Amino acid sequence: MSFIQTDTYAIRGYECDAFGRLSSTALMNFMQESANRNAIDYGIGISDLARHGYGWMLMRFRLRIHQYPRYGQTIRVVTYPTFVEKYFIYRDFQVLGDDDTLLADASSVWLVFDTTKRSMVALPAFIRALHVPTGIEPMPKLNLKPDIQLDLSAVHETKDIAVGWTSIDQNQHVNNVAYVGWLLESINRNRLETLELAEIDLVYRTETHWGDQLLVLSQASSGATLSHRIEHPLSGKEVLVAQSQWRATSNVSAAT
Amino acid sequence: MSFIQTDTYAIRGYECDAFGRLSSTALMNFMQESANRNAIDYGIGISDLARHGYGWMLMRFRLRIHQYPRYGQTIRVVTYPTFVEKYFIYRDFQVLGDDDTLLADASSVWLVFDTTKRSMVALPAFIRALHVPTGIEPMPKLNLKPDIQLDLSAVHETKDIAVGWTSIDQNQHVNNVAYVGWLLESINRNRLETLELAEIDLVYRTETHWGDQLLVLSQASSGATLSHRIEHPLSGKEVLVAQSQWRATSNVSAAT
Repeated sequence: MSFIQTDTYAIRGYECDAFGRLSSTALMNFMQESANRNAIDYGIGISDLARHGYGWMLMRFRLRIHQYPRYGQTIRVVTYPTFVEKYFIYRDFQVLGDDDTLLADASSVWLVFDTTKRSMVALPAFIRALHVPTGIEPMPKLNLKPDIQLDLSAVHETKDIAVGWTSIDQNQHVNNVAYVGWLLESINRNRLETLELAEIDLVYRTETHWGDQLLVLSQASSGATLSHRIEHPLSGKEVLVAQSQWRATSNVSAAT
Repeated sequence: MSFIQTDTYAIRGYECDAFGRLSSTALMNFMQESANRNAIDYGIGISDLARHGYGWMLMRFRLRIHQYPRYGQTIRVVTYPTFVEKYFIYRDFQVLGDDDTLLADASSVWLVFDTTKRSMVALPAFIRALHVPTGIEPMPKLNLKPDIQLDLSAVHETKDIAVGWTSIDQNQHVNNVAYVGWLLESINRNRLETLELAEIDLVYRTETHWGDQLLVLSQASSGATLSHRIEHPLSGKEVLVAQSQWRATSNVSAAT
């Protein structure tokens, strides 16, 4: 049996940014929530895995925002698994407006880790056995070694982060979306005021925990493209690398 | 005509804290959203005021959380204005569980400011004229000079904040709830792990903006009570004072 998750989200005021657009972090939280619900239907939710001593880890998430919905609009998030391999499971997302306009889409790759050993395992049989929905064209599989280079000599913006209480989720990890908030906070104000995020490709390398000190580095590779890295400055260990694409802000004039 | 706002919120995973409880900041965001919707029904929403060159400012918000709802539960937020005076308008909130248990309640005081002069004005006639719902017992009016003292010699925890993009709302101000997140981040880990927030009384003094540098100070006045202050460290200007009450964590054992 296969499951396609569809949830509606009526956009609330506090989920919007300074220009009245749904914030990219709120959008990613909606997508994460719908993914969790779909996993529960499949019997592979967070607590299903916890009973076996396993946890989910997001490896890569590539989001494209074609058009920003605004305060008061209701959007639909549709998500389902697309491929199941020995180590990885892939999941796609579509975000639709009232009139079925495709507002955003994303593809993602996940793995399972052993919560005691803190190491990756092959997907357990009860996950391997799941049926992905048929009749839907999946997005291409993301590979786990995308070419995202950060030239440290060209780093324009840095920000120190102390991982605090409000970023920790029920798994005692930093919420995957919290990193995106930190990346956005590291970006200079002129860019945030004149451009909008069109695409972000996130590669998660290491989990982080309450009390960790992190350094966020953002580089202006070109006008439209930024590369980012979050690292543990003490060990130099890479926590996340990312690349973001920016375009001229399209609908600020619609702000009320 | 009078209006009572009732909204239901199905609690999502990312709205919960590390122990699976609805986070106090998510709860306050729900209450703020329902207050906005109630104001729209009354014709005194943010954009109604903006057309007259006015804006709302929250002066005091006193929240009591009697019992934390958890992931997957649906709660109801009920809110309505209770008193309208020359300068101030009062608003109450109740948060109810599925079985009508009172989970939380709050009272609040608001004023109107002139967005050009950035100064307080008497409530305009179209607000003064509104009818508060009848037949509901209002909570006592909050005064605007509560006795919250911060003994600087007893400050235990401090935190520097750079006001960033993700804290700015559609009015180009810092979201009222963002301050609460910063207060919580300033509190030591042992308290957050062993106690839960039972009550928070927030007195807002000055608005802050994108790029401001703030200092958060938290004092352990006693085991159960903390005093807090957020200030502009350069000018020494007070941004917010607050007092929080803590009790033993009541339902962590219910976490899954």
